[in-house]
Amino acid sequence: MEIGMIGLGKMGSNMVRRLQAAGHSCVVYDRSEEALASMKKEGISTVSSLPELTKNLSSPRSIWLMVPAGVVDNALEELTPLCASGDIVIDGGNSDFRNDIIRAKKLASQGIHYIDVGTSGGVWGLKRGYCLMIGGEKEPVSHLDPIFQALAPGEGTIPKTAEKKSGPRTAELGYLHCGPHGAGHFVKMVHNGIEYGLMAAYAEGFNLLHKGDKFGYDFDLTNVAEVWRRGSVISSWLLDLTASAFNQSSTLKEHSPKVSDSGEGRWTLEAGIQAGVPLHVLAAALFSRFDSRGESEFQNRLLSAMRFEFGGHAEQN
Amino acid sequence: MEIGMIGLGKMGSNMVRRLQAAGHSCVVYDRSEEALASMKKEGISTVSSLPELTKNLSSPRSIWLMVPAGVVDNALEELTPLCASGDIVIDGGNSDFRNDIIRAKKLASQGIHYIDVGTSGGVWGLKRGYCLMIGGEKEPVSHLDPIFQALAPGEGTIPKTAEKKSGPRTAELGYLHCGPHGAGHFVKMVHNGIEYGLMAAYAEGFNLLHKGDKFGYDFDLTNVAEVWRRGSVISSWLLDLTASAFNQSSTLKEHSPKVSDSGEGRWTLEAGIQAGVPLHVLAAALFSRFDSRGESEFQNRLLSAMRFEFGGHAEQN
Amino acid sequence: MEIGMIGLGKMGSNMVRRLQAAGHSCVVYDRSEEALASMKKEGISTVSSLPELTKNLSSPRSIWLMVPAGVVDNALEELTPLCASGDIVIDGGNSDFRNDIIRAKKLASQGIHYIDVGTSGGVWGLKRGYCLMIGGEKEPVSHLDPIFQALAPGEGTIPKTAEKKSGPRTAELGYLHCGPHGAGHFVKMVHNGIEYGLMAAYAEGFNLLHKGDKFGYDFDLTNVAEVWRRGSVISSWLLDLTASAFNQSSTLKEHSPKVSDSGEGRWTLEAGIQAGVPLHVLAAALFSRFDSRGESEFQNRLLSAMRFEFGGHAEQN
Amino acid sequence: MEIGMIGLGKMGSNMVRRLQAAGHSCVVYDRSEEALASMKKEGISTVSSLPELTKNLSSPRSIWLMVPAGVVDNALEELTPLCASGDIVIDGGNSDFRNDIIRAKKLASQGIHYIDVGTSGGVWGLKRGYCLMIGGEKEPVSHLDPIFQALAPGEGTIPKTAEKKSGPRTAELGYLHCGPHGAGHFVKMVHNGIEYGLMAAYAEGFNLLHKGDKFGYDFDLTNVAEVWRRGSVISSWLLDLTASAFNQSSTLKEHSPKVSDSGEGRWTLEAGIQAGVPLHVLAAALFSRFDSRGESEFQNRLLSAMRFEFGGHAEQN
Repeated sequence: MEIGMIGLGKMGSNMVRRLQAAGHSCVVYDRSEEALASMKKEGISTVSSLPELTKNLSSPRSIWLMVPAGVVDNALEELTPLCASGDIVIDGGNSDFRNDIIRAKKLASQGIHYIDVGTSGGVWGLKRGYCLMIGGEKEPVSHLDPIFQALAPGEGTIPKTAEKKSGPRTAELGYLHCGPHGAGHFVKMVHNGIEYGLMAAYAEGFNLLHKGDKFGYDFDLTNVAEVWRRGSVISSWLLDLTASAFNQSSTLKEHSPKVSDSGEGRWTLEAGIQAGVPLHVLAAALFSRFDSRGESEFQNRLLSAMRFEFGGHAEQN
Repeated sequence: MEIGMIGLGKMGSNMVRRLQAAGHSCVVYDRSEEALASMKKEGISTVSSLPELTKNLSSPRSIWLMVPAGVVDNALEELTPLCASGDIVIDGGNSDFRNDIIRAKKLASQGIHYIDVGTSGGVWGLKRGYCLMIGGEKEPVSHLDPIFQALAPGEGTIPKTAEKKSGPRTAELGYLHCGPHGAGHFVKMVHNGIEYGLMAAYAEGFNLLHKGDKFGYDFDLTNVAEVWRRGSVISSWLLDLTASAFNQSSTLKEHSPKVSDSGEGRWTLEAGIQAGVPLHVLAAALFSRFDSRGESEFQNRLLSAMRFEFGGHAEQN
Repeated sequence: MEIGMIGLGKMGSNMVRRLQAAGHSCVVYDRSEEALASMKKEGISTVSSLPELTKNLSSPRSIWLMVPAGVVDNALEELTPLCASGDIVIDGGNSDFRNDIIRAKKLASQGIHYIDVGTSGGVWGLKRGYCLMIGGEKEPVSHLDPIFQALAPGEGTIPKTAEKKSGPRTAELGYLHCGPHGAGHFVKMVHNGIEYGLMAAYAEGFNLLHKGDKFGYDFDLTNVAEVWRRGSVISSWLLDLTASAFNQSSTLKEHSPKVSDSGEGRWTLEAGIQAGVPLHVLAAALFSRFDSRGESEFQNRLLSAMRFEFGGHAEQN
Repeated sequence: MEIGMIGLGKMGSNMVRRLQAAGHSCVVYDRSEEALASMKKEGISTVSSLPELTKNLSSPRSIWLMVPAGVVDNALEELTPLCASGDIVIDGGNSDFRNDIIRAKKLASQGIHYIDVGTSGGVWGLKRGYCLMIGGEKEPVSHLDPIFQALAPGEGTIPKTAEKKSGPRTAELGYLHCGPHGAGHFVKMVHNGIEYGLMAAYAEGFNLLHKGDKFGYDFDLTNVAEVWRRGSVISSWLLDLTASAFNQSSTLKEHSPKVSDSGEGRWTLEAGIQAGVPLHVLAAALFSRFDSRGESEFQNRLLSAMRFEFGGHAEQN
């Protein structure tokens, strides 16, 4: 089927490639002429403005936004006046689910359907497929089914869960209609919260192995990561990536000790706080990223100051 | 090759089956006559005492202990007088690496080689293979290579880590000589520490989804687990198991809210404390298990008592 | 000076008593006739409606709200139409600082000054004085100085901080103008966040002592709390209260193991998340309160379910 | 009464001064001639060797060790051959309680009483008195009562805990016989664990206030600390010290962002792990000190490496 794509970054451009490869017909737009030129070379239909985009799509239109969460509202403001009742606008980025609810209501007043899709897969999605967590009304979600199916990984070689008892078969293909507006981004938010926790668990463990010399050991972390990939309880895709990273650089010196975080890890915590759900591990993982960027400095100076006050401990600066 | 196995619990018996299937010849012993009878029915050579075991193995003997960590020292005390110089004794259970070092030294004085093997795989190992983390001297470890190879999962269908640059090929088969005495159990210990962190990250995230009603959602956790298995950053074997668990019982009511922990999660923390390695997430995961068993009760009563003292807040018991 | 007080709960009524004792003249209102009758008996001027309240105060009026955070907006909606330009309305409760900013702006459009005051002191304030953290414009804050001074503890017997170098003397009397609108409640919010952390630190430590039998000890917690009050690094008012609580009940059985939390501990975390400030300890303290109320149950069941899936561990429910 | 003191550091020398001022007669020894000379100038009886020390004390001797925990065993090895049956040796430093039990047994075989005393007070003890947590047999503890009473703060100006119902009066004077061997150091260990948690709670809160500009505020932390000292729930001695530190330097630039830790915070965690007691807050406080010293660096690089692997996020080093 026909779909418009706004945003041709690492995620958007690969999604277009996967959709085209599956036989769908994409019309694509990005503010960057370079991004457009690159798509054009691959034989994909490009447009140089939003009005051109909407003109080139037949009604009812399906338009997928794959832009940074911070610019979605601006993009919608520009786009929706060009849309008609019955059109579907999909936000596939990392929006806050609370914004989805506001936007869906606003667009509904113009007869436009708003669908929120949490999209996991990173730079690997083109090849591996994208895990899609979808929120919104049933009808437009059904309408987009061929698109979701093309983007999702499909059954692949992953073993079937024994005795799968209930629910839509699509989950086994890698996409799921999670609930009403915001549900897709809510599930993606929690997904990323979990991701932070998983990453921190591996990172802490490998750090301890890295200090093996304190116990008389000199572990080869590349091979430890590799051996855990097979048969162990902790095998995972993140471990596969860890093995790959160590294989390229056993010291990891090329990688920064300052770790970024995006909105979703923070929103997960906020949701937990609001709902009264204890998130000890996810909070520790997020705060450790803040720590990594030096945000504890003042706090630590105060600890040293107290130690000096009560014990006369003068610490070296 | 020929190997003796002491301990025929869930792990030991399946390991024997996997070894026999690979053409090795096992002589097995357990204090339980039932366990022995069951093995005998499968055509495996059983013995009814340790002296009989050592008599039935040709020198130099390889004897694998697969017994609870708490009884290894007793088993060694009984076994080693029956052993001869050159024999190899393997502890495949969940021993503290600090004990390995003591035992290896003691056995070395009798000319016996002690090998520690951390074994991950649980009830799935028979089919999936066991991930083996090995510590000890090079020579006996090399000697046992056919045994390790038979127990380990092998390459399987897991994608090769791109550009694998260094280290022994065995890691890609699922077993690794990690270093001198204790190194195997040290790596297994950290493995389990990480496992606690990973499990807690998933559990916290699903708990937040479980409370989705506080945000107007009613998530189908079985399908959320299922969809995350494909294409997402957080796909893992633990997630496969989670999907399977939800598929059998979406409420999880059959499973206890009191969560056990074994020695290894605790030793990981102790090692971190000793080496000065921050383990925020692994500690939170361990302590949350303590919490689940009601160990915070007194602490919580004291918090209520303080609240009553300063604010006159009387809480309902 | 003259001041109106709305809300005669545990805090409000004692504040009125302290103000009257200092020679100020209060006109008080509460929806509860019982509360009013009790104040009247003590010779305090009561009114039975908000219009009566504003009528009985001379212009410009100062009216202090001491009501639950959840009803402040309703109270303001009823009160402000009865106020005149130049009047001062003080919110002395536990409001979210973000609401202060909204309210101040709204009231400013009517010429009414809005002052936010974080008030610490609990049921002890009457005798001990209230620690006041104040936000708002300079002029109305200055105007209220006699009120703040009467409510605050004053210098008391607390030793002077050596070489006090800068800032207003009022901090040494127990009240402080912290900044513009919301600053008072922001500082109070952080105060309560810290309070949660301090309480948890004591509670965890005493819980460990409580389990002293695991190490062969049988500690008398009442006396441990008592001895730490003198000369130790951890002496504090919360420890004084702890000693008092143990003195009344060494088992604490009268106090609930379910611990409540109010908005401020949560908002502190939200502010930390927003500002990128690591709050490991304050988060752990808040989440442990959630835990105490059983909010981890589903999460724990999932951990047991995973353990059953990979290891066949069946836990007792 | 007469007492020998070994170790004239910040703690030991001030304790001698406090004992002399109370009319006790000290004979003091330190390896540093400078330390001895300084005591001699104050008119205190000094000796230049351990044999001289024991010769100058009449039987049964009481000898107090105030040396680093790491050298206590060496000191005992040198000292005890010079002692006679009935002598009392006191370890007033920060020893691990597990060592106390070993030492007490060893000394008992020579008829020497071993007493462990956890001593809190820091550089302030001379003036403020020392909080003493005592472990050992009843008789020698009773014998030393005058010494403990002289070192302890006494009742002072601290308000009596209302309705003090049970236990020894000495707790109200600032010293307590906590139980058998090791009990004193166990209680001191937990005391320090709590101390870490309290310090971290304040430090996190002040760090959040320090970032007040993210919310449009510019807080005067010196005065916030000062105002909280009076009437607030979080007033404490550590807060007094915080106010003093800010008063001297509002930026704290003189104090290191790298925070040391001593054995007791670590042992507290180990004890909690052994006893199955959840210590979320105390663990977070300890690990944050490890973080402050850069011990998370490798872990953070691994997080960045994973982020690069799955998302192509290249972080700046």
